[in-house]
Amino acid sequence: MHTVLKGTTKEVVVGIDRSFVMIGEKINPTGRKKLAAALTEGNLDYVRQLVENQVAWGAQVLDINVGVPGLDEVSIIPKIIELVKSISDIPLCLDSSNPAVLAAGLAVAPGKPLVNSVSGEEKRLETVLPIVKDRGAAVIGLTMDDKGIPATPEERLAVAEKIIECAARIGISIEDIIIDPLVLTVGSDSRAAMITLQTVDLLRKNFGVNINLGASNVSFGLPERPTVNASFLTLAIQMGATCSITDPAKLGLTVRATDLLLGRDDNSMGYLKYFRAAEKLRALEAEKPA
Amino acid sequence: MHTVLKGTTKEVVVGIDRSFVMIGEKINPTGRKKLAAALTEGNLDYVRQLVENQVAWGAQVLDINVGVPGLDEVSIIPKIIELVKSISDIPLCLDSSNPAVLAAGLAVAPGKPLVNSVSGEEKRLETVLPIVKDRGAAVIGLTMDDKGIPATPEERLAVAEKIIECAARIGISIEDIIIDPLVLTVGSDSRAAMITLQTVDLLRKNFGVNINLGASNVSFGLPERPTVNASFLTLAIQMGATCSITDPAKLGLTVRATDLLLGRDDNSMGYLKYFRAAEKLRALEAEKPA
Repeated sequence: MHTVLKGTTKEVVVGIDRSFVMIGEKINPTGRKKLAAALTEGNLDYVRQLVENQVAWGAQVLDINVGVPGLDEVSIIPKIIELVKSISDIPLCLDSSNPAVLAAGLAVAPGKPLVNSVSGEEKRLETVLPIVKDRGAAVIGLTMDDKGIPATPEERLAVAEKIIECAARIGISIEDIIIDPLVLTVGSDSRAAMITLQTVDLLRKNFGVNINLGASNVSFGLPERPTVNASFLTLAIQMGATCSITDPAKLGLTVRATDLLLGRDDNSMGYLKYFRAAEKLRALEAEKPA
Repeated sequence: MHTVLKGTTKEVVVGIDRSFVMIGEKINPTGRKKLAAALTEGNLDYVRQLVENQVAWGAQVLDINVGVPGLDEVSIIPKIIELVKSISDIPLCLDSSNPAVLAAGLAVAPGKPLVNSVSGEEKRLETVLPIVKDRGAAVIGLTMDDKGIPATPEERLAVAEKIIECAARIGISIEDIIIDPLVLTVGSDSRAAMITLQTVDLLRKNFGVNINLGASNVSFGLPERPTVNASFLTLAIQMGATCSITDPAKLGLTVRATDLLLGRDDNSMGYLKYFRAAEKLRALEAEKPA
């Protein structure tokens, strides 16, 4: 099953037979004070830097979240999207819990964007899915509902099924839904990662749907988080995850190595190309004045 | 299924429900000039350092290979084993292609050692298995035979079956056999890792046997080998590998992170303990004069 996303000119296909897709996570002010300040002050130079840097590190899609408390997101998001369009031709992933912000973003987003996100919560299904359908976009569906995040893989699968059915009812096909089975932190519950990996397996076997994962929540509170995140993403890719909202500078080489090991990279071309680009970027960054 | 190995006092249990077992790879002069020279000169200080260092980094078993061209291995291996016994109480893995060297090592090895290795080659089955049986040791069985390393998972499984049957015929139980499905380099064949991972899966499902993997061959010729090795080991552990002859200083944290993610580490105790020990070791190494 293929989810096709489009930017100004670039098309990205998400699928189990394709190389794993990295969605750059950095245009999101949550926990990023510098970006929050830049958005508040209308300092677009810093946003431009984040866009260029993520694309250089191999982001194939860019997540765009402008949620700063007190900021008029509905009027800001089109400006940020116009900026991104002037720099990069890759697809965008519009990230907001506010349907009005999503609608404002979708009105100016290029090609076929991804919407982040809907869930099994009634209100979100009712408000977000029609916007996705009207725009002909794709959407990430989180496996949580009005009762919260289910404890078992089977219950998370049931939420995914509900999202897929609701979407189908208004004419959104399953190819345009990417399920995110969510991961809690393994530091507080040693079964947390397993439950997510088992949900990935069930989703793959039952629906064959594309699967997204955030890879950093799992390691919250632990030391050496990049090692835990890298192992988690590797395990999830083997189980059937096909994209991740992540930091390509941190996890890109692991992702391309895993593609290679899973037989999705003929002659190591993708891995070697990624390595050479990363090597150049590191050299450039080392040259910069501190 | 549990493979129990014993050292002077330490017992190590290899099994899918246990934490992954790291067999320290460094007492092997192949490609290690300094160790080859030390063995030739009888300089045991360097061997002692390698033993202490690997145990400190979390090796639970130590591979012992003294194969230097021109050296009388039969007379050297008992001395090295006596040295290791004076430093550490963990189980040993005796590594030689020469049955006389294995016999000399087994005569002085403590507890219940592991023999590395037998294969499906007729001559090795005939010469190695009786030595293993006489000593009550365990043995690693490589999935290759007189025709070489089979190209498909099914053929490698058939070689494993042959080894298990030959062993059973002389009274070695399947618990005392650890199959190594071998991995070729993914840089020359992009299906190489997949074939090994599929063999791991078949071995797990058909025999439930313990599975060893060398994790570094896979990345030969590629840049950033530790990233490829870490991803490969993570994938293999998820498929059912239970031990690896490896460098714990390089892959230990990945191994303990994977145990944690796969639900085999309650309250992250193993991961945190490993992290703290590694942190201390790195601090000590940084203090050393260059």
